[in-house]
Amino acid sequence: MSDFLMAELIKKKRSGHQHTTAEISFIISGFTSGNVPDYQMAAWLMAVYFNGMTPHETAELTRIMLHSGRTLDFSHLPGVAVDKHSTGGVGDKTSMILAPIAAAAGARVPMIAGRGLGHTGGTLDKLEAIPGFRVDLSLDTFIKQIETLGVSIIGQTEEICPADKKIYALRDVTATVESYPLICASIMSKKIAEGIGALVLDVKFGSGAFMRTIEEADTLATKLMEIGTAHGKRVSTVLTSMEQPLGRFIGNGLEIGECVSILRNEEFLGRPPEDFADTRELSLALAGQMVWLSGVAKTEEEGLAKAKQALESGAAWTKFKEICLAQGGRLDEMTFDAQTVEVMAPESGFISALNTEQIGYAALTLGAGRLKTTDPIDYAAGIEIHKKLGERVEKGERLYTLFHSAPSAPTDLASVRLLSATKISLQKPSVPDLIARKRVN
Amino acid sequence: MSDFLMAELIKKKRSGHQHTTAEISFIISGFTSGNVPDYQMAAWLMAVYFNGMTPHETAELTRIMLHSGRTLDFSHLPGVAVDKHSTGGVGDKTSMILAPIAAAAGARVPMIAGRGLGHTGGTLDKLEAIPGFRVDLSLDTFIKQIETLGVSIIGQTEEICPADKKIYALRDVTATVESYPLICASIMSKKIAEGIGALVLDVKFGSGAFMRTIEEADTLATKLMEIGTAHGKRVSTVLTSMEQPLGRFIGNGLEIGECVSILRNEEFLGRPPEDFADTRELSLALAGQMVWLSGVAKTEEEGLAKAKQALESGAAWTKFKEICLAQGGRLDEMTFDAQTVEVMAPESGFISALNTEQIGYAALTLGAGRLKTTDPIDYAAGIEIHKKLGERVEKGERLYTLFHSAPSAPTDLASVRLLSATKISLQKPSVPDLIARKRVN
Repeated sequence: MSDFLMAELIKKKRSGHQHTTAEISFIISGFTSGNVPDYQMAAWLMAVYFNGMTPHETAELTRIMLHSGRTLDFSHLPGVAVDKHSTGGVGDKTSMILAPIAAAAGARVPMIAGRGLGHTGGTLDKLEAIPGFRVDLSLDTFIKQIETLGVSIIGQTEEICPADKKIYALRDVTATVESYPLICASIMSKKIAEGIGALVLDVKFGSGAFMRTIEEADTLATKLMEIGTAHGKRVSTVLTSMEQPLGRFIGNGLEIGECVSILRNEEFLGRPPEDFADTRELSLALAGQMVWLSGVAKTEEEGLAKAKQALESGAAWTKFKEICLAQGGRLDEMTFDAQTVEVMAPESGFISALNTEQIGYAALTLGAGRLKTTDPIDYAAGIEIHKKLGERVEKGERLYTLFHSAPSAPTDLASVRLLSATKISLQKPSVPDLIARKRVN
Repeated sequence: MSDFLMAELIKKKRSGHQHTTAEISFIISGFTSGNVPDYQMAAWLMAVYFNGMTPHETAELTRIMLHSGRTLDFSHLPGVAVDKHSTGGVGDKTSMILAPIAAAAGARVPMIAGRGLGHTGGTLDKLEAIPGFRVDLSLDTFIKQIETLGVSIIGQTEEICPADKKIYALRDVTATVESYPLICASIMSKKIAEGIGALVLDVKFGSGAFMRTIEEADTLATKLMEIGTAHGKRVSTVLTSMEQPLGRFIGNGLEIGECVSILRNEEFLGRPPEDFADTRELSLALAGQMVWLSGVAKTEEEGLAKAKQALESGAAWTKFKEICLAQGGRLDEMTFDAQTVEVMAPESGFISALNTEQIGYAALTLGAGRLKTTDPIDYAAGIEIHKKLGERVEKGERLYTLFHSAPSAPTDLASVRLLSATKISLQKPSVPDLIARKRVN
């Protein structure tokens, strides 16, 4: 019977019709419980890929997915619980900075983060570069830490959105990842299940992002915001450029080093914090939105001011150390003594374009990332970027430093990849703004 | 690895690109052998549904599917082995008439037929209404019968096109049946595997056919013919109207009765053979094409003349009896003593439209067909049509006679269905030609 009904529902979506809430519920709960077989789910997902879903359908899909597991609730705490989600980039390390900033400013930040895959990194992998840091806390411990510290960062558990986990695994092998409603429902169901009342979305576009153009990023931002609105959540979307990596370092341990440099206002591997101005600027902008939407600040401007104060006063750095302490991370045990290889400029000129996806893959090649979810990671591996977009370089000057700890790391391959990803021109190019557009519902 | 490669191939078709032969071979042989899981196949089938396949891709898909199992070869026999395929209709009983006609005229007819499903009937079910008739002969017995009698009609075996069987089962539950390339490859792979050199295709359109318009039927005919041409097979396509049931009887045993009446030139249940003029005309037209393409006749006209001669001389009737004898069918044991219910005209006028699909479902309701492949069949059940398109009826006169042998048969439901499928108008309507268009490659 379920076979027959599901075939009718696949046909309905295939023919471009709209599902009722009961139908979506049948599909999702059926698949999660095993009553709808994976082959029917796969056909339905492909029909959704081609025919899409209306905003109402997507909001309902999100609701049903988020209720497939445990949902958290922080309404017993003062203010509005707030989190940030980024659509993924290269060198994107803002979570480690903005979470302690927002919490130090008084916001509650229940953050359930992800791992890196392909050319993009993941917050959990970065935190695990800190010896002993545990991201597998139980949800009850997570809740308790929000109550005491105001912030905790953990990984997805089996209890949160099991439907999303099962559906994502199927999408991954059936070429149905790239679908707006499926992407949006996956993101928003997990975030809403965390118990947030507001969400700041960093939607990236450019050569290192999944969305290549600002128009695509804007479409995604609109759809994500629509779901938030339908669920009564405040959503701020910030469209940011990923035409070059964020900051100077890519790689899990190295990125922690850059974050600590910004939080502590101290140099890292010989670089002063000013070298990380873009990472600092974006982290503050996103943290400012979080502080505002949490209710700690009355206006956007006040939110940004409170975020700055939390950073500059050292309160955010203290909060970061508290997070590490609570989650077992031993910051003082971190070392940065990997082997290095320098990559020199083959000609003189200005850096006029960086294929950021390829730079991400070069870091992956060195051991900093993974192609498959089961690949191991070298936390010391990564890349230092000496010349960013618009900067002048002379022939023979350093463009990149490669870091790795495996003797067999394919540094030649990574070098070739980096050089082909780097365009040097005689004319000084215009550099795109980091923050292109902001909106709130 | 295969998971990864298959995901890439799904993405390729999803993105509207064309597969190489090696890729199609990977997909089909992978799925048949179990290396490509059904969820990936389902996603690929849905991508094919949306993005289609080129004629070359479809011809290659057909080739790979037909070579998934045993292929027959009748080149040791004189002439060109020929078969007919119909896209399915209501009261469509021509196979039982044209197969013995063509064989009696000297053609070799290796016919692997199907079963009924939904509103359409199937040749195997009709033959099985003859007590003892066996359609499950081994392929070797089938071949021997072609050598001795020139004709045999059996069901699909596990040996012929196992890929098609497995793919069709998946399409059926994933709403991917209605795809031209998948339909065409399924039909043609099975027919070519039979060892035919020529094929006559009866492509039906109208209220009782899968193709509702002649344009859709023409598109399907063109695509089927393209595959035949690519495989070096002569293909004749005949587009025929299914705006009303063929003949006067629907239902397995009743249709055998109508066929025997035409073959024997004797009355059936009080009706003279002239009452079945449409069934006779279409059977002769299709048989004429078969005789022509088999090489027994030099021209289309001569093919038709030889078919007529085989029918009118009684040679076809003798051949039919030989088929029954060879396959265990005891024609003399057939009885037509089912219970009957009459359905009267609620008003006077002309029959101006018949919803043929609904008439097919009314017959199914009485037990003549099946909704699921596992449903049992009442071979005595069916419908006699007293008034066909354009005929005059007076209020209270008989429109239909219902036949059934189960006391609980829902005759009221069937009557309501038939009346709502029958439009009576004051003006005499124009009746569409039975044979609308013919083409040959």
